[in-house]
Order: sequence, then structure tokens, then C-alpha cells
Amino acid sequence: MRKIYVIGIGAGDPDHLTLQAAKAIGRTDVFFLLDKGEAKESMIELRRGILKAYGKPGRRIAEGRDPDRDRTPADYEGTIADWRHRRSEVTEALIREHLLDGETGAFLVWGDPSLYDSTIAILDEILARGGTRFDYEVIPGISSVSALAAKHRIGVNRVGRPFQVTTGRRLAEEWPANVDDVIVMLDAQQTFGTVDAQDVDIYWGAYIGTPDEMLVSGPLAEVADEIRRVRAEARARHGWIMDTYLLRRRP
Amino acid sequence: MRKIYVIGIGAGDPDHLTLQAAKAIGRTDVFFLLDKGEAKESMIELRRGILKAYGKPGRRIAEGRDPDRDRTPADYEGTIADWRHRRSEVTEALIREHLLDGETGAFLVWGDPSLYDSTIAILDEILARGGTRFDYEVIPGISSVSALAAKHRIGVNRVGRPFQVTTGRRLAEEWPANVDDVIVMLDAQQTFGTVDAQDVDIYWGAYIGTPDEMLVSGPLAEVADEIRRVRAEARARHGWIMDTYLLRRRP
Ligand SMILES: C[S@@+](CC[C@H](N)C(=O)[O-])C[C@H]1O[C@@H](n2cnc3c(N)ncnc32)[C@H](O)[C@@H]1O
Ligand SMILES: C[S@@+](CC[C@H](N)C(=O)[O-])C[C@H]1O[C@@H](n2cnc3c(N)ncnc32)[C@H](O)[C@@H]1O
Repeated sequence: MRKIYVIGIGAGDPDHLTLQAAKAIGRTDVFFLLDKGEAKESMIELRRGILKAYGKPGRRIAEGRDPDRDRTPADYEGTIADWRHRRSEVTEALIREHLLDGETGAFLVWGDPSLYDSTIAILDEILARGGTRFDYEVIPGISSVSALAAKHRIGVNRVGRPFQVTTGRRLAEEWPANVDDVIVMLDAQQTFGTVDAQDVDIYWGAYIGTPDEMLVSGPLAEVADEIRRVRAEARARHGWIMDTYLLRRRP
Repeated sequence: MRKIYVIGIGAGDPDHLTLQAAKAIGRTDVFFLLDKGEAKESMIELRRGILKAYGKPGRRIAEGRDPDRDRTPADYEGTIADWRHRRSEVTEALIREHLLDGETGAFLVWGDPSLYDSTIAILDEILARGGTRFDYEVIPGISSVSALAAKHRIGVNRVGRPFQVTTGRRLAEEWPANVDDVIVMLDAQQTFGTVDAQDVDIYWGAYIGTPDEMLVSGPLAEVADEIRRVRAEARARHGWIMDTYLLRRRP
């Protein structure tokens, strides 16, 4: 039987790696890489460093061409589903070609594999098609949400209260009902600028855990412009950005 | 200056520990323990094992008596705030007495310190009083939510959709508005039994990551009784239980 690990490697800091992840990496024969077109330099660097530090001698890397994807689709969920499907075909071909019987393969997933990541769904889709068999195991990782909260030294919830995690796209539609603590991911549009800033604090972070980390917090009305400015500068300098923030409504 | 680490140690599996956490533990002179009355045997065991593996020789342990707390308060948030306040006084006394100038102290926090944990708020309260000065840093940990999702091999969100994290107490009031994916923590009442089970799947886990781990998943209507049964048995056997679950409404 073939075995595949889906390994959360943390959100940017190499020391986010867990012992469990390091051990699994040390047992892996083949690492699957599928984010060619998409992955950014520092993401590639992090993976390279981790493999060098914890990978076993003779480990192999199987690289696949990530299918293209419409970045501004009209039908977001449909487009993602289609992209996943094509990704699952590329992934299946990689597994069939490179993972020998009795061997162990792995996907190194940014942050935590359970949070806005498609690796698990892709493996499920392959297994559901029934043509390729393997066993797989998921190893949790430090998410960008935990990393953001740690750097700002805050809780994501307040005492006994709920919180919601959502996307920039959803927040643009409305502030979620009945919650005062909202974490926003996957926001290319600085959607914090569209919400009613009255009585809202923001805790914002970009490239968290990496040497380029930036953190800004304060009353949204006061710091929104600053975040827009530093975000635009950083985005121009790096050519890309990953940022996450918590919006917290004061009582 | 004195330094304090708030270290997330993961939700039950010793291998959840991150490299960052292990390094911080190795730099710590004094570990503060405050959960005497509350902590359960396997939680104490985990901490003990971690200190033995990563603590430096000569490290000290400073133990404080955790203030009592009303477990079924009428005013939940007020009671917790009062308990936190008393905890912060005990903690402050511990720090003053045991952490010498130039030394490093640490709190080992279950799971991730940003998730339903009071350590950060307690340190902030001490600093706000102004009588005791120190620097503190938070180190993120694998949360029980990430651990639950990994064991069930699921994402906590669905493509482009939000999810909410809440407490049993809140879920008992109502299913959160406009979300179909709800993670429930701190639920002593098996509140999943009170929601409309129609079209809802549950992914439940108890003692996740420990040798006593239990996992049940399936359509809520079909597995609710089984969860109630195994939960009651385990609770009776261990004298306590910690469980978390995801409720997922089918489209
Ligand atoms: C496709 S999702 C993957 C999330 C990842 N699985 C996790 O657990 O953090 C990508 C989003 O995660 C957030 N993100 C990931 N890493 C980040 C970092 N180091 N700093 C800030 N945001 C980050 C951003 O919101 C980004 O748009
Ligand atoms: C006071 S909160 C602390 C949460 C912790 N900071 C975290 O990140 O998981 C305690 C709640 O966490 C959940 N929990 C913690 N560890 C767990 C485990 N190993 N298995 C299942 N649930 C757990 C339960 O819902 C429990 O009621």
C-alpha cells in the first residue's frame, strides 16, 4: 500500500513546524509539488529549507504543472471546483508515476491543511474516482490565524463569545450577523475599508512569521489608511502579498 | 528586564509541539503552573513529559493555587471576568516571588493560546495594574480545532465559505445566522442534541491526540445517540472529558 502525508508546515516561520511534521517529513520518499506558477519565492524557500533540514537522504521531488485558474471569476465556487478537478487529475498522474508501492509521499501545505486549502479535497476526489489507491494522513500545522493572534498577543475570541472566519469576498457582502469578532483571509481587495469603522479595532498582519512580517493594529478608522499604504508598498516591492486580519467590534 | 513566554503546547499529542515552543521551553528558568484544581491527569502528564524532554537543567516550577470558580454561574461573562481577576492576582504574586531580574518564565498553554484561554488576558491585566513589569511573547500552538479536522481529514471551511467557532452555551441559544459550518467547544451539555439534525453532519472528537482519543462522524440524526453513549461512558471512566465537534449543514 502507498501512504501519503498532508503536512501542515506553518504559516511562514520555519520554527512553526511541529515535531510530528518533522518526523513525517523524515519518513517521506517523495514530495509532491504542485504550486509552480502560484508559489512565491519565500514560500518556495521555506519548503526548500524544511526539506534540507528534515528530509531523508535520497528523498525525491515530483513536480507537477499547476493548472491555470481564472483569478476574477464570475462564478467563484464553480471556478474553484473546476480548478480542483483539474488539479486532482494532475495530482493523480504525479502519484501514479512517482509513488512506488510501499513508499510514502507527502504534500507540504502552507499553514494548517484544514483552513482554506484544497489538498484534502483533491485527495478525496482522486480516491472517489477509484482508479488510484493510497492511504492518507493529515498532520495539523500552525495556521496564519494562530500566528496573527500570537504576534498581536490577542485571543481570537472574547470570553464565552463566538468568532467567525471568513473571506474578503464574503465580508464585502456584509458584516456577518451576530458576531463581533471576524477574521478575514483571502482578501485581495482591502475589504476592511468597506466596513463601518465605528467602534471597530483591526489587528492586521502580512507575511506573518517571515522576515518581511508587518503588523498594524488600532481603531480601524485611525489605521485603515496606514494599512492601505504599507500594504500597497509591500505588494509593489514583493510582487505579491498575503495578509490576514481580525476585525473586533467594541462593546 | 524579565521575560515571559506564553507557549501553546498543542491539544494532547506531545508531537504537536512546535520547534519554536521547544526552543522557548529550553530557554525558560521558571514554569508557572496555575491549574492545580482544574487540570486533569493526562494534561499534567503531557506538561511533565514536555518539561523533561525540552526543559533545561535547573529549571524551576512555581505552582499557584488556582482560585475557585462557580461552574454554573447565572452571569457567565461576569463570573469569568471575576475569576480572571483573582487569577491575575495569584499569577502576579507568583511572578513577583519567583521570577528574578533577567530571568525567563513561561506558561504552558493547552492548544493554542489565542483560543478560549485566559493567560494573555491575565498578563495584560497584571501589566495594566502597573505594579509588576515584564515583557511577554506568545508562541502559537496546534489548537484542538486543527487537531479535530486533521483526524477527520476535513477542512473546517468549504470553498470560499465562512465558518464560525462558538461554545456549547451559545449554540444552545441558536444556530449561528448565515453559516453552515459551526465548530463547538466548551460544551458540557452535548448541545448537538438540541439542534435540528436535518441535513447536518457531525465530526466529533474527544481527548484528541491523546491515547484516549475517540472520533465519531456521520449524519447527526444517525450518530447522535452513539456520541451520547460513548461520551457518557468515557466521561464516567475518566472523571472528565474534553470534546470538540464540527456541525456541517449539507447544501
Ligand atoms: C489559501 S489560504 C491558506 C491558509 C493556510 N492553510 C493557513 O492555515 O493559514 C491563503 C490565505 O492565508 C492567509 N495567510 C497565509 N499565510 C499568511 C501569512 N504568513 N501572513 C498573513 N496571512 C497569511 C492569507 O489570508 C492568505 O490569503
Ligand atoms: C478552555 S478551551 C481551550 C482550548 C485550547 N486553547 C485549544 O486551542 O484547543 C477547552 C476546550 O477545548 C477543546 N479541547 C481542547 N483539547 C481538546 C482535545 N484534545 N480533544 C477535544 N477537545 C479539546 C474542548 O472543546 C474543551 O472544552
